[in-house]
Amino acid sequence: MTLDDARAADAADPLRGFRERFVLPDGVIYLDGNSLGALPAVTAARVARTVADEWGRGLIRSWNDADWLGAPQRIGALIAPLLGAAEDEVIVADSTSANLFKLLAAAIRATGRSTILTEPGNFPTDLHVAQGVAALLPGVSVRAAPADELAAALDGDTAVLLLSHVHYRSGARHDMAALSAAARAAGALSLWDVSHSVGAVPLDLVRDGADLAVGCGYKFLNGGPGAPAFLFVRRALQPTLASPITGWMGHKRPFAFEDDYAAGEGMTRFLAGTPPILGMAALEEGVRILREVDMAAVAAKSAALFDLFAARVAALAPELRLVSPTQARARGSHIAFAHPHAHEIVQALIADGVIGDFRAPDVLRFGLTPLYLGHEDVWRATDILGRIMAGGSWRDPRFAVRARVT
Amino acid sequence: MTLDDARAADAADPLRGFRERFVLPDGVIYLDGNSLGALPAVTAARVARTVADEWGRGLIRSWNDADWLGAPQRIGALIAPLLGAAEDEVIVADSTSANLFKLLAAAIRATGRSTILTEPGNFPTDLHVAQGVAALLPGVSVRAAPADELAAALDGDTAVLLLSHVHYRSGARHDMAALSAAARAAGALSLWDVSHSVGAVPLDLVRDGADLAVGCGYKFLNGGPGAPAFLFVRRALQPTLASPITGWMGHKRPFAFEDDYAAGEGMTRFLAGTPPILGMAALEEGVRILREVDMAAVAAKSAALFDLFAARVAALAPELRLVSPTQARARGSHIAFAHPHAHEIVQALIADGVIGDFRAPDVLRFGLTPLYLGHEDVWRATDILGRIMAGGSWRDPRFAVRARVT
Repeated sequence: MTLDDARAADAADPLRGFRERFVLPDGVIYLDGNSLGALPAVTAARVARTVADEWGRGLIRSWNDADWLGAPQRIGALIAPLLGAAEDEVIVADSTSANLFKLLAAAIRATGRSTILTEPGNFPTDLHVAQGVAALLPGVSVRAAPADELAAALDGDTAVLLLSHVHYRSGARHDMAALSAAARAAGALSLWDVSHSVGAVPLDLVRDGADLAVGCGYKFLNGGPGAPAFLFVRRALQPTLASPITGWMGHKRPFAFEDDYAAGEGMTRFLAGTPPILGMAALEEGVRILREVDMAAVAAKSAALFDLFAARVAALAPELRLVSPTQARARGSHIAFAHPHAHEIVQALIADGVIGDFRAPDVLRFGLTPLYLGHEDVWRATDILGRIMAGGSWRDPRFAVRARVT
Repeated sequence: MTLDDARAADAADPLRGFRERFVLPDGVIYLDGNSLGALPAVTAARVARTVADEWGRGLIRSWNDADWLGAPQRIGALIAPLLGAAEDEVIVADSTSANLFKLLAAAIRATGRSTILTEPGNFPTDLHVAQGVAALLPGVSVRAAPADELAAALDGDTAVLLLSHVHYRSGARHDMAALSAAARAAGALSLWDVSHSVGAVPLDLVRDGADLAVGCGYKFLNGGPGAPAFLFVRRALQPTLASPITGWMGHKRPFAFEDDYAAGEGMTRFLAGTPPILGMAALEEGVRILREVDMAAVAAKSAALFDLFAARVAALAPELRLVSPTQARARGSHIAFAHPHAHEIVQALIADGVIGDFRAPDVLRFGLTPLYLGHEDVWRATDILGRIMAGGSWRDPRFAVRARVT
């Protein structure tokens, strides 16, 4: 492929119209939308209205008049089709970490079993929250098995199989249908963290037999920094699961102010505190854009961008070792390479306007976001990467300085 | 007091300059700042900058460059003096409900005891979250004792005494020093929900011997709808408490991406997920205004507004029964009345531009927020209330319709 070919691919791209729906700074090629999605053009005005009109003028009345109270269910229903779930199977609440905690504790109680099975190297918050549940509940333990040993590791004491659908470093995607079926055959529940999948790859949780899922709003959903997260619970399971964090918003009648807790219907029981309205407003705008998109087109473009990125790096920076799967169906929508000086190379790229990220200890990670990234962007980014590697500019000592978030 | 007297009191009010720091709609007297604080004038611009500049232009870099990552500690330190706490004893995170859950579970584990002692009629989320902890942890139970029997109810099995400092309905304020000392003498921890106190009354948690506290950002701190909440843990206790929700942001080295959880130093261990940045930005502006205020002046003005409100209602609407304590030091900064038709009366008031709220089953509640409310406002609001009661306009059937939030 030549630069002209890349431009031709962009001209023919059925998703090309979405680029103008996002605000991106000049002089930057943004390859980190898998960590923090870009700002949709409509979001600033939506948040401004929420602040000035709904809060400032509507005041407390906006809980009803602007349907603030319905935001967790309303935005959950908007997200549901992106998950392959029914509208009443998804709700927006809290953070991914808090939602993992709720569902892990609920799964332990519902199954009467005591092992959380996961894999080593899973995203830290998944492992850490599971460890916290094990430290809290007597007899509960966490067992980690490598991906190819998970099915064999399921046994009669496995309460829940907890996995990230798409791995945060490599981008490797699990076979959700096969592993959910294996969990079910062993009498365990499956709990999927789809933070790196939702909005990135087509999902069909119901078809694939997933029992439970959590995911975050600030990556491919473009919901803004620290956006609220979501939970999915397969409908038939909802009445059998009890949230451990029984805050007033999860009550069946929150405004009756009763002394005794009574779990709300359906997904409502997984709410806890008062919903974060500013974050909800931004998330809703991000999700709305995704709802206009054909996810098959997103997947096809993601694969094309990946292939171009991989081919260019193989040619221009062969010392970077591809760590993502080469088969499109076996991965998410980012590409990762290993190099002993990954941190310095990422910093040199950022200094040259190419924003990817470093994941300890040795990974360079680049998000491929088909809604606001084109083939020419990949061409130019890999050109700059090739020059940095060939010229050795990453050896500049300033690039070795570690910020808190690196 | 006459209307002229009320105006004179406003003219002499040392806090009168703060009124213009808030945006309030024309034609409204806002007496619900204890439920959702008013919008500070600076907040719209701050949130707009956070969206357009930090998110839109800074993108992922803003976790470092705009110190998004430091927001929980930074805003916690800003809140600390309002609590009478040291800067490293407070952190902003999650919701009040989630924070209650963390601290109750931590207190159970740290003390090795199994009873949560609270009072009946406490704010629902306090009771409900305590009930959820009891349902989750084997052997744990919740015991509720009336306020005057609490000290006697503390025993060798009491892990934690959980109380709202200022009651959400009546406004009655507990004696924090006496009850914290009683808890300590019994070997229990004290956990105070200061949602209706912070920014409303002077607090001195350290002096008063409180061990733990939680509170919300959207009432008297004017942090916006669903603003992030905060936790306080007395410094000496911090290393002894383990959060049950061990998300990645509470890790000692979150960006090392280690498989094993290691609790962060100090209050950091009480973080769980990625902080909600839009909500944090709005909260920070609200708290900054409070930091300029002399809380003794706030308390004095609150008492004056209360006395005026109570006297006017006694004269103009004597069928409303005052349920708040008459002594200023025994209450927070709202005034509550009981009436069998409280709901209809509140709806009639709202229709006439006086926004208070109804709390089931029979309470009319009016927030007295000295930063943006004056004596003339109270005069006019009670005038309207008197007319509604005298004329019986609250009997209009439309005022009986219950909204979801009432």
